[in-house]
Parts: sequence; structure tokens; C-alpha cells
Amino acid sequence: MDDIRALVFDVFGTVVDWRSGVARDVRRLLPAVDAEAFADAWRGRYVPSMDRVRRGEQPWTDLDELHRASLDDLLAEFGVPDVPGEVRTELVLAWHRLDPWPDSVAGLTRLKERYVIASLSNGNVALLVDMAKHGGLPWDTVLSAELFGHYKPDPEVYDGAARLLGLPPQRVLMVAAHTKDLAAARARGLHTAYVHRPGEHGPAAAPPPERDPEADVSVASLEELASRLGV
Amino acid sequence: MDDIRALVFDVFGTVVDWRSGVARDVRRLLPAVDAEAFADAWRGRYVPSMDRVRRGEQPWTDLDELHRASLDDLLAEFGVPDVPGEVRTELVLAWHRLDPWPDSVAGLTRLKERYVIASLSNGNVALLVDMAKHGGLPWDTVLSAELFGHYKPDPEVYDGAARLLGLPPQRVLMVAAHTKDLAAARARGLHTAYVHRPGEHGPAAAPPPERDPEADVSVASLEELASRLGV
Repeated sequence: MDDIRALVFDVFGTVVDWRSGVARDVRRLLPAVDAEAFADAWRGRYVPSMDRVRRGEQPWTDLDELHRASLDDLLAEFGVPDVPGEVRTELVLAWHRLDPWPDSVAGLTRLKERYVIASLSNGNVALLVDMAKHGGLPWDTVLSAELFGHYKPDPEVYDGAARLLGLPPQRVLMVAAHTKDLAAARARGLHTAYVHRPGEHGPAAAPPPERDPEADVSVASLEELASRLGV
Repeated sequence: MDDIRALVFDVFGTVVDWRSGVARDVRRLLPAVDAEAFADAWRGRYVPSMDRVRRGEQPWTDLDELHRASLDDLLAEFGVPDVPGEVRTELVLAWHRLDPWPDSVAGLTRLKERYVIASLSNGNVALLVDMAKHGGLPWDTVLSAELFGHYKPDPEVYDGAARLLGLPPQRVLMVAAHTKDLAAARARGLHTAYVHRPGEHGPAAAPPPERDPEADVSVASLEELASRLGV
């Protein structure tokens, strides 16, 4: 761990609170709908939609387009099939303006003093750039599944991040709130840090584990990660 | 021009002073050599080395590797063929720690308030990330020829930048001190801004034109560009 040069971050759930942000825009744009239930259902389609791309059943499709296709299905399912196209476009952009968790900007700012910090998200580049401007996320650069034509947890994403950063994988630390993402990163030789985000799926959901025993380090915030790394 | 959302910047010569930075490290690492002449000769091999890749005579090779191959040739040419490998590696990294022109950071910081700002350079991602950290360049993200497997002025680079930013080309402004770069960007539908950098090739070289009549705007600094755009 002493030789780490770059930290790459999962974003949805790890750095930003997707559920509150999506629900906020659903409440504004679809007042007749249960906003939190809609956000959860939308997020529920995230992995299956990417898996169709990962299995090659669908050519490369960026996350904005996957979000739009899931949205079109969900609006019918939630009994509001007549929402106009402009509103659908605006709803998809909810994912571009999610708020950071309260510790994220302070933690990233500290970590940036010593390390290269980059996103490593399934969000497309434009989404991640918009989100960084919205929330003040101080990335050194945005790395995205889109650059590799593969979604996490495909190995190409982790390999590609290390390659673009000009580093051997063991000099890169993957930071995520999801143990599967970390396991896939570890399988490609990256170090891993787990962030416990009990609020990701809302107050009623079963919380994720407090620690990932397979990770190099488990923390409760990005500020704690900075402290643990001595920054 | 009112609808511009993102500014993409050529880097070597436009944002940073490659000649002084390279000469500084040559002076330190190769004391027997005329540092400015060596920097000029190294930069002189830049376009020919990329053109071999652009013509398909050589598979994709990133700029660090092109710099290294040119360096190996030049050391022989300058009569110092016995420089050890570690020193060569260190010399290649001189291109990662070039200083910004005096107006660059202040201008970029102002422009970032209103626009997405990104590099769009032939430098590889790792080089551009190192350079941004060295000089405090506040990019929203790093865009590089490496992401597209093509060097400027190939159209794929300008098209790819607009695509990754999720914008039609006319909402992107290419900023460069080199008229050829701007002409290639314009041919792909981008708006263009010319920056006059009389010091790029040193005090003895003939200065470039003060204005590019084909560009939407010509300025003498990135601070002037911010002012002209009303930021």
C-alpha cells in the first residue's frame, strides 16, 4: 500500500447519493409518482441493463441511453405512460446532478494532495463531468467505462484505468462501497478500499456490511480514508 | 459562440511552455549538451514521429514512447550516446512537468466557472495528469489523443472529444496556439480560439502570427480569452 500512486473511485453510491438525487427530480417532474420507489426501481434496472451489454446481447450503449430505455419501461409500469420526451430527457439528467455524500468533497480534496484521484464509474464521461461540476468533485481526471467499451466488473475497465494512468495495477487503489466491484478490481491486481455507505438504498433497506474483510482497508467515509492513508 | 458549453485546449505551447521546461531538465541531466538546442531538436521530431503513426506505418504508440525513441536518436546525434537508461526515463518525464505560461492557471480557473474545460492534447493521459498536478491546471477532465487511438490533426480526435463530452461540435471551442490544429477542428464543426504565444520557440525564432483570421477569436492569453467570453 505504501507505493500507491492513484486512487480510482466508484461513484454511484460511493461518492454520491444517487437515491436522494434521483428522487428529488422525480418528485419535481413526476409529482404523481412515489419518488423513492421510482428511484429504487430505476436503479434496480441498472445492473440488468449493463449485463445485456456485457454479455454482448446489445452493442455498446452508454449509461444515459441505458437510463433512458429503463425509464421508458418504468413510466409505463408506474402508470404514467404519457410523460413527454422533454421531461424524460430531463429525468435522465437527474443522474448528472447527484449530490456528493457530506464527506466526499473534503475527503477527495485531502486525498488529491498526495494522490492522483479519478472516477472509475459506469457513468459516461459527460455524466461524470456534469456531476463533478455540480458537486465540486475535484477529480484529476474522469475515467469511465465508456473509454473502454466495457462495463464494470469486466476486467477491461480496471486494466484500462491502470494503463491510462501509466501505472502497474498494484500502484492503483480502487475505492468502492460495493464488494463485487472491489473483488473484480483485486482480481486484476489493484489494491482495494471499502467504504461503508449505509444510506445508499434508503433508511428502510438492510444496510451493507460495515467492513469488507477482503479489502486492504474498510472505512466509513472518504475523510476517514484520507486519515487512514496518513493524508 | 453564445451556445458554447465546453472549451478544449491544445497543451504543448498553448497552455504550457515546453521549451523552457525541457531545457531545464536537459541542463540538469545532460550538462554537456546545449539545452535549448536539444529541446528544439526533440520537439522537431514530434510531428514526424506522430505522422508515422497517423499514416499507419507504425501501430498506435503513445507520446511517452515516441519521445523516448526520438531521445535515443538525438543522444547519438548530440554526441552523448552513453547516457544510462534511468537518465533517459527521467528525461522523458521532463514533458510531464512543464510549467504553465504565467496566465494559464488564472485564465483556466476563470473559464472553468462557466465552461467545461478539458485538455485535448497529443500527450498521453498519464503525462497530462502529471502535468496538471505539477502546474495546478484545473481541468474538469483530461482528454487525449490516446483515448481515440489517433493523433491530432486526425478528425477522430475532434469528433471524439465532442462525443465524450456529449455535445454537438458547434458547442465546443478548440483553443490552440497553432493554426493547423484550429483548421482541423473547424473542419469538424468546432468553434476555434487562437492564442498568440510568441515565446513558444524561444526568443530567437520568428514569432507566430498575432491573429488567426479564420478563428472566431484571437487572444494573447487565456486571461484575455476569459475576458472576451465575458467570464
